[in-house]
Amino acid sequence: MRIPIDRNSEIPLYRQIEQYFRQAILSGSLTAQTRLPASRTLAHDLGVNRITIETAYGELEADGLVYTHPGSGVYVLPMPAQPARQPAPIDALWPLWQQELALQPAEASPRVPAASPGCIDFSPGGGASDLFPVEEFRKVLQNILRREGNAALEYGDPCGYVPLRATIAQVLASQGLQTSPDNVLITSGSQQAIALVCQTLLRPGDCILVEAPTYASGLELFHGLGLKVIGVPLDENGLQMDALETALQQHHPRLIYTIPNFHNPTGVCLSAARRRTLLELSRRHNAAVLEDDFVGDLRYEGRALPTLKSLDPGGQVIYVSTFSKMLMPGLRVGFMVADGPALERLARLKRTTDLATSSFIQRALENYVTIGRYQAHLRRSCLLYRRRRDAALQAVRRWLPEQTRWTAPQGGLFLWLRLPPGMDSARLLPLALSAGVSFAPGRSFFADGCSGAEALRLNFTLLPPEQIDEGIQRLARALDQLSRSD
Amino acid sequence: MRIPIDRNSEIPLYRQIEQYFRQAILSGSLTAQTRLPASRTLAHDLGVNRITIETAYGELEADGLVYTHPGSGVYVLPMPAQPARQPAPIDALWPLWQQELALQPAEASPRVPAASPGCIDFSPGGGASDLFPVEEFRKVLQNILRREGNAALEYGDPCGYVPLRATIAQVLASQGLQTSPDNVLITSGSQQAIALVCQTLLRPGDCILVEAPTYASGLELFHGLGLKVIGVPLDENGLQMDALETALQQHHPRLIYTIPNFHNPTGVCLSAARRRTLLELSRRHNAAVLEDDFVGDLRYEGRALPTLKSLDPGGQVIYVSTFSKMLMPGLRVGFMVADGPALERLARLKRTTDLATSSFIQRALENYVTIGRYQAHLRRSCLLYRRRRDAALQAVRRWLPEQTRWTAPQGGLFLWLRLPPGMDSARLLPLALSAGVSFAPGRSFFADGCSGAEALRLNFTLLPPEQIDEGIQRLARALDQLSRSD
Repeated sequence: MRIPIDRNSEIPLYRQIEQYFRQAILSGSLTAQTRLPASRTLAHDLGVNRITIETAYGELEADGLVYTHPGSGVYVLPMPAQPARQPAPIDALWPLWQQELALQPAEASPRVPAASPGCIDFSPGGGASDLFPVEEFRKVLQNILRREGNAALEYGDPCGYVPLRATIAQVLASQGLQTSPDNVLITSGSQQAIALVCQTLLRPGDCILVEAPTYASGLELFHGLGLKVIGVPLDENGLQMDALETALQQHHPRLIYTIPNFHNPTGVCLSAARRRTLLELSRRHNAAVLEDDFVGDLRYEGRALPTLKSLDPGGQVIYVSTFSKMLMPGLRVGFMVADGPALERLARLKRTTDLATSSFIQRALENYVTIGRYQAHLRRSCLLYRRRRDAALQAVRRWLPEQTRWTAPQGGLFLWLRLPPGMDSARLLPLALSAGVSFAPGRSFFADGCSGAEALRLNFTLLPPEQIDEGIQRLARALDQLSRSD
Repeated sequence: MRIPIDRNSEIPLYRQIEQYFRQAILSGSLTAQTRLPASRTLAHDLGVNRITIETAYGELEADGLVYTHPGSGVYVLPMPAQPARQPAPIDALWPLWQQELALQPAEASPRVPAASPGCIDFSPGGGASDLFPVEEFRKVLQNILRREGNAALEYGDPCGYVPLRATIAQVLASQGLQTSPDNVLITSGSQQAIALVCQTLLRPGDCILVEAPTYASGLELFHGLGLKVIGVPLDENGLQMDALETALQQHHPRLIYTIPNFHNPTGVCLSAARRRTLLELSRRHNAAVLEDDFVGDLRYEGRALPTLKSLDPGGQVIYVSTFSKMLMPGLRVGFMVADGPALERLARLKRTTDLATSSFIQRALENYVTIGRYQAHLRRSCLLYRRRRDAALQAVRRWLPEQTRWTAPQGGLFLWLRLPPGMDSARLLPLALSAGVSFAPGRSFFADGCSGAEALRLNFTLLPPEQIDEGIQRLARALDQLSRSD
């Protein structure tokens, strides 16, 4: 045990040792029934006389903090519940570098308040996790640990478990994107993939183009990396090409981040013609394209649109996706597809950033995911989500004020609502929470932090139709309240 | 299915569709027995006539790539093993930004060649993973999935699963470092913790001080982030304080990265007096301290030394450690302890970098790790590793040439050898591999990439004593060969 003791201090050693334990016990760091080290061992560890330790322990015992179990050792006694379990406030001023850090502007991310029990929550960003067959997955984990034992818990290939990369290449081929396992890089969720791409291609101060609105956690990342974030507006056919061209000319971005399929938060898709234009513009202006295809296959109707990556034979596009939305978010396994020098750089940064994503989870996923299983899961999800989307559309038509606007999404997870003129979704939220419904307010999806006040995002995939209907009714009541308070 | 088709192309649509499947099947992306989409579904997805799909499938069938199972569908036939499963080489030149990327200097990391079967491998960086009770862990996973079901696979707290943070605070208190769960941040291994600290405190071009030699994957990370890496020499009492002071004066680093306990690769510990000096110097020069305590508790003899963090009440030190070395590397769970503005920034960057570390693995670890269990595992490890270290020391004394030098480590995983003058461990390695033994050559641990030619690192914890002895004998033979070839 490595208690800090100071031989030059005027405080006797036994007192220093006693104080360490006293503070740890009173603060709750050392819990009841924890056995203190044997006095002989601790004396040896610290290089002090055994009497010193015994004196310290004696003081603790006299004060009712520990008890001696004869022949067994010294144990921590239960403490009465402490009002303040926090450690004592630090007396010293922060070091200068900490003070400097505190002066840097911090993006205060507007967090949606936690929904209370009984609240109908349309705010999350993921799919319905109760679809995931956790019992099957449990059996898969069993088999892996039984069959492979400790080997399943070793470090893995930094680029990802090779059989899983092959499975991903097969799943992608069955979706219309042909690639090789060698071009697949496994990451800890697609969030890490996006972070790696930014860190590889951009430096602080560099410019990145995004849709306005776009994925809120993406914006947080871009701002956190010190990037200059330029939002380009979209309409019901996705990113507007004239605005994109102007932004490319004005800002010379090194990267375009886009969600062409069932865009987050609006649910729109980039049209087929615009896909080709986007690729051509990006090439002409020497900007890489980062395609986020987080739910690209969750289509309920309409024509399938090819991924940007499948239209790009030249290594212009880096494709990222994830198992989090289709399977379970807690797995934290995403992936990217890239080529050429970028692929090498990304693989190296992944390795140096966290060595590798958990090989155990990757093995489990590889064992669980087959094309057949994946496609069956996709079919089940599409069927269920489509019904929920229809219920949401019906409910907003039925319950919300006439001037509310929305685009009917052909797939994905989200409905993007625009409130009647003059209404602010951030002001609506507390009223909605009181009425027992929650959503993601529009402003958090805009790089400038002020657009989108009139908008909000609803995730329609999480709840059965009748609850969706009830939730929209509650939302309508909150809106009514807001309009009267104005 | 989202096959890229081009309605403006001169190639007929059926041919485009057929070509997509042909390439995917021949390249192995679509494997045998994969069911192609029903022609009606695919026609609907792509917005083409059903005849178009049937024509494409007909061509594939005529060429023996697929077969029709009446009433069931069209399936991929097994292909003969392809000599080249790589995708066709990309014709286009890389985009300009890719070419620019390729021109940036890439640190070619000197990888140790893979050891062949039967090779006695002293090169790895981790502990003996066969000590980990995988069967107990399997039961823990079972219980979690049975009891918590899908909830165990949801997103978790970005700072880490709260009960696990409390457990870590308790384990740290039992080791002599008192902290609060609020100051603990869970990461994907300590590698990610180190990366987050660098990305929070430093920008490309900033200076970082490290020990010379130091952790090789740390060096790769620092170089990858574009940092200026300054190595400060150490001796048998750790980092040399006069050299540290000179480096602080000359280079004004913003961060000192140090491994004060059982240093990687040398195995030495920073003396108690130097610990206090280091903290004082770092404060005076306004440099943060990043303490990597990857095996700080693996002490086999001698006096326990307090962590830098436990000597620092003012938030000067950021502490990182991991469960990878003590338990299993494939878990990829590490943690850091930080305070004040730095803690807030680190937590935010962790969240935007990958949202959270797998909550499932964190729950499993929390369920598995209790102080009692951790301490029992630590005792078992110390007992075993100490015997292995003694065997290694005995073997190097017995078999290696007289002019070989080493420092006897009091704990940890590594023995750092210095070969007789004029011998180069990188030249020794191929001979050693032929003789059936492997090690980590010295150069990869130095920031300048050229020091350390005469040194090598042996991990003595992985093998039973008789194999260690045999491995050192093989090393001696390789050394003998090398000296004769000179």
